[in-house]
Amino acid sequence: MKDKINIGILGLGVVGSGTVKVLQQNADSIREKVGSEIVIRKVAVRDLNKRRATDVPREILTNNPIEVLDDPEIDIICELIGGVSPAREYVMRALKNGKHVVSANKELIAKEGYLITAEADRLNLDFQFEGAVGGGIPIIQPMRNALSGNRVQELMGIVNGTTNYILTRMTLEGADFDMVLRDAQAQGYAEADPTSDVGGFDAQYKIAILSSIAFNSRVNVADVYVEGITHITRRDIECARELGHVIKLLGIATRVGDDGVQVRVHPALLPNAHPLASTNDVYNAIYVRGDSVGDVMFYGRGAGMMPTGSAVVGDVIDVCRNIRMGATGRVRTNTFEAKRMIPMVDVESKYYLRMQVDDRPKVLASVAMALGDHDVSIETVVQKSTGRDLAEIILVTHTVREGNMREAIEDIRSLETVRQVFNWIRVEK
Amino acid sequence: MKDKINIGILGLGVVGSGTVKVLQQNADSIREKVGSEIVIRKVAVRDLNKRRATDVPREILTNNPIEVLDDPEIDIICELIGGVSPAREYVMRALKNGKHVVSANKELIAKEGYLITAEADRLNLDFQFEGAVGGGIPIIQPMRNALSGNRVQELMGIVNGTTNYILTRMTLEGADFDMVLRDAQAQGYAEADPTSDVGGFDAQYKIAILSSIAFNSRVNVADVYVEGITHITRRDIECARELGHVIKLLGIATRVGDDGVQVRVHPALLPNAHPLASTNDVYNAIYVRGDSVGDVMFYGRGAGMMPTGSAVVGDVIDVCRNIRMGATGRVRTNTFEAKRMIPMVDVESKYYLRMQVDDRPKVLASVAMALGDHDVSIETVVQKSTGRDLAEIILVTHTVREGNMREAIEDIRSLETVRQVFNWIRVEK
Repeated sequence: MKDKINIGILGLGVVGSGTVKVLQQNADSIREKVGSEIVIRKVAVRDLNKRRATDVPREILTNNPIEVLDDPEIDIICELIGGVSPAREYVMRALKNGKHVVSANKELIAKEGYLITAEADRLNLDFQFEGAVGGGIPIIQPMRNALSGNRVQELMGIVNGTTNYILTRMTLEGADFDMVLRDAQAQGYAEADPTSDVGGFDAQYKIAILSSIAFNSRVNVADVYVEGITHITRRDIECARELGHVIKLLGIATRVGDDGVQVRVHPALLPNAHPLASTNDVYNAIYVRGDSVGDVMFYGRGAGMMPTGSAVVGDVIDVCRNIRMGATGRVRTNTFEAKRMIPMVDVESKYYLRMQVDDRPKVLASVAMALGDHDVSIETVVQKSTGRDLAEIILVTHTVREGNMREAIEDIRSLETVRQVFNWIRVEK
Repeated sequence: MKDKINIGILGLGVVGSGTVKVLQQNADSIREKVGSEIVIRKVAVRDLNKRRATDVPREILTNNPIEVLDDPEIDIICELIGGVSPAREYVMRALKNGKHVVSANKELIAKEGYLITAEADRLNLDFQFEGAVGGGIPIIQPMRNALSGNRVQELMGIVNGTTNYILTRMTLEGADFDMVLRDAQAQGYAEADPTSDVGGFDAQYKIAILSSIAFNSRVNVADVYVEGITHITRRDIECARELGHVIKLLGIATRVGDDGVQVRVHPALLPNAHPLASTNDVYNAIYVRGDSVGDVMFYGRGAGMMPTGSAVVGDVIDVCRNIRMGATGRVRTNTFEAKRMIPMVDVESKYYLRMQVDDRPKVLASVAMALGDHDVSIETVVQKSTGRDLAEIILVTHTVREGNMREAIEDIRSLETVRQVFNWIRVEK
């Protein structure tokens, strides 16, 4: 048995620094658990002279990733640089060199994971990525192991911390999106270019990864419907509260019949009593419904240096155990179930709809008529005068096919008495 | 590689039936994930003629467990009979015969797990028991794998479904303990002899198992402080609600300094906003605080045929993967950290205290004085006249050593103006 396992790290940003810190601060207990010492042999960084959050000896730093990837002494590469290229080329080169790979790169895994895992499986190498989804929350390993006797029926999760932080503050403070976003940027909870988070794309990557594992299939990122939170107003949050709901950005993946799946990211109204409704601030939570286990939920910090470092180190320990036992490639990626993607128009949901109308007789009747023409029936409706001969209508529909709902909204928009359809948001149970 | 892995099952009660059902209903996907077919070769039952919840061919049933344990074709034994004896003898015989063991037997594992795991480790065999705690919730595997880079600081969990069901109904209905218990028994949520659940002993086993894994140590069941819920009244629950809290039966394990741990089971007041506070009915939830991951929580059904069957099958799949790779004994039990158990009197907590006193001047002063004599200071206090010259005092203390609190309560009991100390309950943050 190897008494030392050497790892190489690509990238010493937030996640890289966390990984180094976790390995350093718990080195003794990790050695006991693995049975070998884990040695950080080389770390590739862009700038050798930058000040770091971690203590890494200057002599193991290099600004040439190839030095790390081609070092014959290194057993495991931790790819922690993010983005598709050159991360993909680095990962493939590591595999070609017979090295196992641990990554926390959601974009790479969502877009190219199927190619990488196929190559890793072919070479009996490990490729693991617990840190790519939910920060330190164990979710990928449990789905592949403890829950693997289940047929997963549905996944639902809050998988983006930035948007959850923004929506939580909008809810608690009655504040506007733009104000909270600026503040989140100032505090480092949102990036200077927030598109990936607030546009839902980060969540889209994550739900593509989770649903691929849950459904033993390959879910393409491009097939995942995505809608961000930029159109959510404080008025919508206020109306949701009056209806006993909160608004959350959800990733949802549902099995439909024998061969269908629907995978989507969008804001939704959730009842206050739903366990995901109380997942606030930067916390993430993922709900899994399996045919035997029923509902299970995993909750924790969805990002950050130490939580994501915890996930990367958990994967490293797992790979080390495989190396020691000659058992690498032990858990394979399964894509044995071919799946048909259900288009968004065929998804069934309840809908919240808020609009401004003329405050005069029969306006509500004409709205209800337009909905009814597309088989949309109303569960609750409130109409309030807002002065100056205007009123606001807020309604929630019964469950209906989304295509019908969209057509009904088009018809409502064309009604003479409807000034503006402010917003429509899906309502989850 | 083996194209078939044979398992033998001891016991076809609730968990045994669930295990068979999960293996049968997802046989195809399990075969794909494992790479081998899992064959149920023999099942030992007490009564061959009893009607079963599952379809098991008559010819694989036996009423002789030794036939299963000694069958040379069987690779994995699922011990699902419960209790210490003869389960221990069966498990040890299985190991002696070179078979891996999956068990959901919390009492056996809490009491004798250290002997069994030592033997399994010595023989490079797998001994797994995800189903022993939290039903189908993945908690043991995640602590041993994905979270294994962490130094666990604290565990806190609702790990007994029966008591949580009873407390939830007492809370929602304002009902008495005895009434709800009788109803729970009638509905099959509580056993005819409810001692193990309502006395906290089931939770004691589970927290002993979890804390042993969390602290890489051996936590003896007998060293785990235990207090059940039989003394909780609807009035306590009502008072807790007025203080913004719910009452839950908690298992708590805390690291104290470098070598100390405290492990305990007792009812406690939890703030409404705490994620465990909304874990209701038969659901379980386990909170883990690690030094790098921070707070993570695992939530789901803590018992039942299919959830526990899901956990057993998850373990079986894990063992099968090890068998195929020649990697059994891959994750070892770690007891490398010697731990000193902190006695309950040295635990620090806040306390809720409810008493009946004479409704006259200076009574509250004398209570506060008795508390102060033992360095117990008061955070909140309410005194209410209840008529007939009596009053009720409800108070919550600041954090104080339990020994001090107990002495203070003794002093309060001896006060002439105090008619009765109804209850005192710990308050968790």
